[in-house]
Amino acid sequence: MADTPRREPRPRATTSSSRRRSVAHIRPGTTPGTLPAPEPGATTPKRICVIAYTREAVTETEGKTLEEALAAAGPGVRWINVDGADAPLLQRLGTHFKLHPLALEDVLTGPQRPKVERYTDHYFMILRMLRRTTPGQVDIDDEQVSVFFGRDWVITVQERPGGDVFDPVRDAIRQARGRVREAGADYLAYLLLDAVVDGYFPVLEAVSDRVEALEAETLAPAPPTLQALQHTRHTVLTLRRAIWPTREAVGVLQREESPLVAAETRVFLRDSHDHAVQALELVEAFREMLAGMMDVYLSVQNQRLNEVMKVLTVIATLFIPLTFIASIYGMNFEHMPELHWRFGYAYALSLMVLIAGGMLFYFRRKGWW
Amino acid sequence: MADTPRREPRPRATTSSSRRRSVAHIRPGTTPGTLPAPEPGATTPKRICVIAYTREAVTETEGKTLEEALAAAGPGVRWINVDGADAPLLQRLGTHFKLHPLALEDVLTGPQRPKVERYTDHYFMILRMLRRTTPGQVDIDDEQVSVFFGRDWVITVQERPGGDVFDPVRDAIRQARGRVREAGADYLAYLLLDAVVDGYFPVLEAVSDRVEALEAETLAPAPPTLQALQHTRHTVLTLRRAIWPTREAVGVLQREESPLVAAETRVFLRDSHDHAVQALELVEAFREMLAGMMDVYLSVQNQRLNEVMKVLTVIATLFIPLTFIASIYGMNFEHMPELHWRFGYAYALSLMVLIAGGMLFYFRRKGWW
Amino acid sequence: MADTPRREPRPRATTSSSRRRSVAHIRPGTTPGTLPAPEPGATTPKRICVIAYTREAVTETEGKTLEEALAAAGPGVRWINVDGADAPLLQRLGTHFKLHPLALEDVLTGPQRPKVERYTDHYFMILRMLRRTTPGQVDIDDEQVSVFFGRDWVITVQERPGGDVFDPVRDAIRQARGRVREAGADYLAYLLLDAVVDGYFPVLEAVSDRVEALEAETLAPAPPTLQALQHTRHTVLTLRRAIWPTREAVGVLQREESPLVAAETRVFLRDSHDHAVQALELVEAFREMLAGMMDVYLSVQNQRLNEVMKVLTVIATLFIPLTFIASIYGMNFEHMPELHWRFGYAYALSLMVLIAGGMLFYFRRKGWW
Amino acid sequence: MADTPRREPRPRATTSSSRRRSVAHIRPGTTPGTLPAPEPGATTPKRICVIAYTREAVTETEGKTLEEALAAAGPGVRWINVDGADAPLLQRLGTHFKLHPLALEDVLTGPQRPKVERYTDHYFMILRMLRRTTPGQVDIDDEQVSVFFGRDWVITVQERPGGDVFDPVRDAIRQARGRVREAGADYLAYLLLDAVVDGYFPVLEAVSDRVEALEAETLAPAPPTLQALQHTRHTVLTLRRAIWPTREAVGVLQREESPLVAAETRVFLRDSHDHAVQALELVEAFREMLAGMMDVYLSVQNQRLNEVMKVLTVIATLFIPLTFIASIYGMNFEHMPELHWRFGYAYALSLMVLIAGGMLFYFRRKGWW
Amino acid sequence: MADTPRREPRPRATTSSSRRRSVAHIRPGTTPGTLPAPEPGATTPKRICVIAYTREAVTETEGKTLEEALAAAGPGVRWINVDGADAPLLQRLGTHFKLHPLALEDVLTGPQRPKVERYTDHYFMILRMLRRTTPGQVDIDDEQVSVFFGRDWVITVQERPGGDVFDPVRDAIRQARGRVREAGADYLAYLLLDAVVDGYFPVLEAVSDRVEALEAETLAPAPPTLQALQHTRHTVLTLRRAIWPTREAVGVLQREESPLVAAETRVFLRDSHDHAVQALELVEAFREMLAGMMDVYLSVQNQRLNEVMKVLTVIATLFIPLTFIASIYGMNFEHMPELHWRFGYAYALSLMVLIAGGMLFYFRRKGWW
Repeated sequence: MADTPRREPRPRATTSSSRRRSVAHIRPGTTPGTLPAPEPGATTPKRICVIAYTREAVTETEGKTLEEALAAAGPGVRWINVDGADAPLLQRLGTHFKLHPLALEDVLTGPQRPKVERYTDHYFMILRMLRRTTPGQVDIDDEQVSVFFGRDWVITVQERPGGDVFDPVRDAIRQARGRVREAGADYLAYLLLDAVVDGYFPVLEAVSDRVEALEAETLAPAPPTLQALQHTRHTVLTLRRAIWPTREAVGVLQREESPLVAAETRVFLRDSHDHAVQALELVEAFREMLAGMMDVYLSVQNQRLNEVMKVLTVIATLFIPLTFIASIYGMNFEHMPELHWRFGYAYALSLMVLIAGGMLFYFRRKGWW
Repeated sequence: MADTPRREPRPRATTSSSRRRSVAHIRPGTTPGTLPAPEPGATTPKRICVIAYTREAVTETEGKTLEEALAAAGPGVRWINVDGADAPLLQRLGTHFKLHPLALEDVLTGPQRPKVERYTDHYFMILRMLRRTTPGQVDIDDEQVSVFFGRDWVITVQERPGGDVFDPVRDAIRQARGRVREAGADYLAYLLLDAVVDGYFPVLEAVSDRVEALEAETLAPAPPTLQALQHTRHTVLTLRRAIWPTREAVGVLQREESPLVAAETRVFLRDSHDHAVQALELVEAFREMLAGMMDVYLSVQNQRLNEVMKVLTVIATLFIPLTFIASIYGMNFEHMPELHWRFGYAYALSLMVLIAGGMLFYFRRKGWW
Repeated sequence: MADTPRREPRPRATTSSSRRRSVAHIRPGTTPGTLPAPEPGATTPKRICVIAYTREAVTETEGKTLEEALAAAGPGVRWINVDGADAPLLQRLGTHFKLHPLALEDVLTGPQRPKVERYTDHYFMILRMLRRTTPGQVDIDDEQVSVFFGRDWVITVQERPGGDVFDPVRDAIRQARGRVREAGADYLAYLLLDAVVDGYFPVLEAVSDRVEALEAETLAPAPPTLQALQHTRHTVLTLRRAIWPTREAVGVLQREESPLVAAETRVFLRDSHDHAVQALELVEAFREMLAGMMDVYLSVQNQRLNEVMKVLTVIATLFIPLTFIASIYGMNFEHMPELHWRFGYAYALSLMVLIAGGMLFYFRRKGWW
Repeated sequence: MADTPRREPRPRATTSSSRRRSVAHIRPGTTPGTLPAPEPGATTPKRICVIAYTREAVTETEGKTLEEALAAAGPGVRWINVDGADAPLLQRLGTHFKLHPLALEDVLTGPQRPKVERYTDHYFMILRMLRRTTPGQVDIDDEQVSVFFGRDWVITVQERPGGDVFDPVRDAIRQARGRVREAGADYLAYLLLDAVVDGYFPVLEAVSDRVEALEAETLAPAPPTLQALQHTRHTVLTLRRAIWPTREAVGVLQREESPLVAAETRVFLRDSHDHAVQALELVEAFREMLAGMMDVYLSVQNQRLNEVMKVLTVIATLFIPLTFIASIYGMNFEHMPELHWRFGYAYALSLMVLIAGGMLFYFRRKGWW
Repeated sequence: MADTPRREPRPRATTSSSRRRSVAHIRPGTTPGTLPAPEPGATTPKRICVIAYTREAVTETEGKTLEEALAAAGPGVRWINVDGADAPLLQRLGTHFKLHPLALEDVLTGPQRPKVERYTDHYFMILRMLRRTTPGQVDIDDEQVSVFFGRDWVITVQERPGGDVFDPVRDAIRQARGRVREAGADYLAYLLLDAVVDGYFPVLEAVSDRVEALEAETLAPAPPTLQALQHTRHTVLTLRRAIWPTREAVGVLQREESPLVAAETRVFLRDSHDHAVQALELVEAFREMLAGMMDVYLSVQNQRLNEVMKVLTVIATLFIPLTFIASIYGMNFEHMPELHWRFGYAYALSLMVLIAGGMLFYFRRKGWW
């Protein structure tokens, strides 16, 4: 019965979409609960995919329209995944599953902070999916994932196709790994949440490597170090803005008494909360280390200036008096007795050597040379 | 029945009023609850406008006096909007709607912090309406809006005409958009609150753009950068002082059990609270970024000083010894054997080249050149 | 019946007393609840003045001794105001009104932090009255005011005569303005508290002006700017230390259930609390701005150093090579072919012009000139 | 009956003990509740002294062993004071008064943070006694005092003799001052706690004076200023580490419902709590001021560097071009027309004066001279 | 009966393992509760060792497999210690003691933050064991210890052999020291927790010594000081990340009502909590001191630059004018009257002395010399 077709690898997010808005697209004065019209020219390729499973069977259907996909789905817990939703589709989803209009509005008015909200008979979560854009770099691709879940359904809305973070969850359902097929929609929602939170760790690892590399660099900095420092600070700030409210949200979900979340699932949510706390602590440690590195950077710059100035000072103060003596005996006065001494030249040179020696002795004592 | 005249665009706030006091106009020792007399010469053009609506009909009246306007209003929820209130008018409003004298006093004693206060049978809110004065700039026009609401009435008092932030709410009432015509005064109050909070986002977007521009600038700063940095910091501080207490106030309104606020409205207030939290997080992120940019600015200045000093040091330490040699052979002693050598000149020049070469080698090894 | 004599303006605090101790005069090891003996030579002129009022009448009496003054007072709520209390007088007050010895001790052991304390049948408040010493300056005169209030009496103890902050309250009682004559001792205590809190705002306004002036100055700072910055920071710190605990204390008084504070008075206390919060927020904003200005100050100093160094570098690196060339041809070697060339001088000058031109081109490209 | 012998002034702490460990002497892996063996060579002179008092009488006994001293004590509340306790003595104390082994362990494993702990039928407090070592300095002598108190006994353990902080309490008992002879062991414990907390204020006053002196110094700093700043920061940090947990501990003691602490004593504990809060606020103010002074110090250093550089720049840029001109006319070319001009010398000098004048005009315009 | 074999000293951790990952080894998308497969090549030598004890007897067994070791163990409380666990072993442990799969997963997915988690019938603790790698240094060896405990068993899992921190606990059991043999599994768990927390203090002592040494160094810093400062800051950060959550976890364990933790054990846990708080306060004090030292370091650098610049300025400004005069009289004009004066040379020299004297006077007044 279980019909699990092999899914093609989804196309990666285009670079144009990786340059994100940092401020939510809220238009003041709009009637709350109305969905924004699609921006002209932004025709994201929609994809609706429904997985339905019971303890015994899995059906996986994909359709161009919501009704088509739902009709074909089997019995049990249903997971509707939508890539690139637009207003009309969300409207139909809202009507079908009785989703709250304010939640639907949040799905479309992009970058929202992560949160968990409880409505009468469903939960609504906003999560931020963070991925490195290029390996070895700390650039982050930041995508918003909206998750609704009720008694026996879960809806996930992704901004772009490319959500391979959820692929292991799909595989777990297909292969009946763990307890997913035995548990309800709340456990599935937990699995998705867990997948997103665990997805922060590879990014954190990349940041950790970068911070370590920068630490060595700041002790002998070149101008690009400053830019790299700033860049990493940005990434850390982005991570923090994603992880901080996620931790809070998971904490709320775990503590709240609700018939929609089973007691056994709560134990698992505590684990996710724990991971979020751990991620946040790493972020805070990185922040502090980067701030400290800025201090070190400035200090090393000062040290260099000191060194340069010492060389200048030693050379200048050594030769200026000598040159002065030489220029005295370069004067053209008629009556300058020294000029006619037999050993005048030797005397002048000796004077110079004497002065230079004294200077050098002084500098050495000062530790400049 | 619905009489909805087209409203002319209101005149923009004059520039003179955009230079705001930052300290509330509290005169120590005044009896609490007394309204301040109008400042001489400050004759703001009053405008009273009443919108009354039921599920079926809307009436919109405007009058020179309060009594006139109220008399003409139809049945249902009444929204009295006053532009540029003065003490006598507030006194009459207070008597008519049984407003608390302390709340009335707050309306007139200028910049108050946003708050929500519950009185026996009405709520009182102070909000700060923030708008950019000029597009592309981060200058903010900051206006105080006072909102009272009771069982079936809402009073809004604006300092100056120009409150186009509320125009969409008016349109929603006129066109019966959303659930406004079905809900009570609490929902209307929520809509106004929501309009003010959502109005922060265009300002935040402007600040976001400016912060991004400044970030690039600080890596190659010119003196005006410093001023721009300071200016933006100010704007962020102003935003923070407006948004922080707003968030708090909305949170209180949402959580408090009160017969004046319906349970369904609470769900919407949670959404507004969420927006306020999001705005605040952006503000905090901007603050941190601007503080970091100050560090970068100082570091780049140091870097430049370093570079200038290196050039000076290289040139000076290169030529000072050479000039010393030249000045030695410029001395006029009678007995200077080198002067009479056949290749004395060549020898002196060679000596100089040798010394210069050694110096350059040393500088290169130091990485200065 | 109402006998309200015109009061002379009280003499201003002497400058000697405006230099305050910043640490409370607590002598370790003293038995708690004992009053300190007066410091020798500190004979503050005592003044005891009692205002008693009912809804109908006011009596105002003044006496050299407490018993004298109380005996002469009429019926109703009694307000005993003492300027410059000493231990024996407080002892008698304590016995008469059953004041707690610990509270009495706090009155005399100088700078205490603002607080509200509840004893069995009276409240005890310590407040800090802040006033500008000279207009246009941010110097603060800081005086402690102790307020006791019970069922139908209020006692205020001021350190020095000069408490014109309370004069409007006296006038309100005499002229039966507001609801003071109808309410009890708790409302009078509120009025006094309100007078003190509102008295912070003119000081804050002065600080606000000074901060704004300093902001402009830091962009082109002179040495006195640094001192002015520090001075203003101090004032802000003093304000903070006065306002922070005041806010807390008023909050406690407002929330606490007590038969001594009527429910209606609580609404007014909420207003005072609000003012204290607003004052505190201003103080925090000033603190942040002043800290930011210190950064700017340092940055502007660095900028100037940069500018000075650039001038030095341009001049020195321009002329040092030229002087070197000149000194070469100033050498006295017998065999220097260039010296005998017909256009030797012209050649030397041309060489110099060439080098100078190259240098200037390099500097311009670097943006130094 | 009251036998109160005159006590000799105790010997001052030796300097060797004033150099304190900053980390508690916890040896990992020891069985909890075991007392550490005395460090070899550390034979602190033990002294056990018992004061017993009722409303009518006081007995004061001193003995070499605990049993001796207790046997001789009269009826009533007993205060056992031990200077320089060691493990065997504590063991006997513990057995006699049923003290908890963990508390006994804390007494000996030195620097513990201040705390109050409640055991089944006694309280255990750790306090830090701070004293200035030398008047006029901010060096602090930091001693740990352990206080146990039960229904009718108080035990104090001091590390070294020299606890004159408790002498006033002894005198109060002997002379029946205040309510000490009427109250129980809890009031005596309060008096001791109060004595320790009030002992912070002279230290704070010394710090306050030093901070004020440093403030003036930083505006014209000499190198020792930096060390003095650091030193004072340390003292403030030490104060903070002592006062912060003390405040917390007193707060706990005051709030906790316990049959061992009478309601009347609670009012007095609130007063101690208040003093601790006040001390802490002073400490925080000092911290902020010292941090601000570090900024000023750096700024003044920068200012000086600026000044020095300006002098160098003015002199160097003034004379370098002039010297260049002089060296041109010092060249030995055969054909240099100017040299043969009649007014060549005057022309050269005039040229120099002209250039110097132009330079000076430029510098003045720049504000450098 | 008590069979307590002498245990060989375990081999020290290899240096390769002391270079720790700082980010937990969480692979996104794995089904929660599955144990990671061992990394290829990482064949840690497993060791399973069971101690079982009653009030009367102790048996100590060691086996290659879990079943072997458990079978041989005697009656009473059982402590199973595993060094270097792998997935299959944990699986068997989990099945035998009904451990929660999420807890088992945390044991293997490396650096987890310290925590205490309560499952249905057992507790799970993660602790961080910190040790100095080399005496006299502040390098830290950081090992994760997982502790499970139920009604009458305790399981400890260490990453590597070398856990001599637990040896004193073993000895206490063998020799029936303290109350360990009379108490249950909760007390044993407490002892292990206490051993870990007390193990932080020697590290803190080392850091304390280092901070003190650095403090002296910063006043006369050499370049390595900066690196040492950074290094110590790192150690302090690591300590903080270990101690902060430990304190929290112990606090939770102490407060929580649970049948698994006896009331008497709670008193001991409060002591551990206290130690953790104390450790944390030390860490915070070190952090603040190190941050302050960075400021001092920068200031001392600036001071040195100032000194160097003063020397340069004094020498340069002294000799530049003198050299200028000399070069004037080195010019070759035909008509220079001074050159033919009888005392021209003396006049020139006097002029120079005069100018030099004036300069020196000026410098002395400036305090530069």
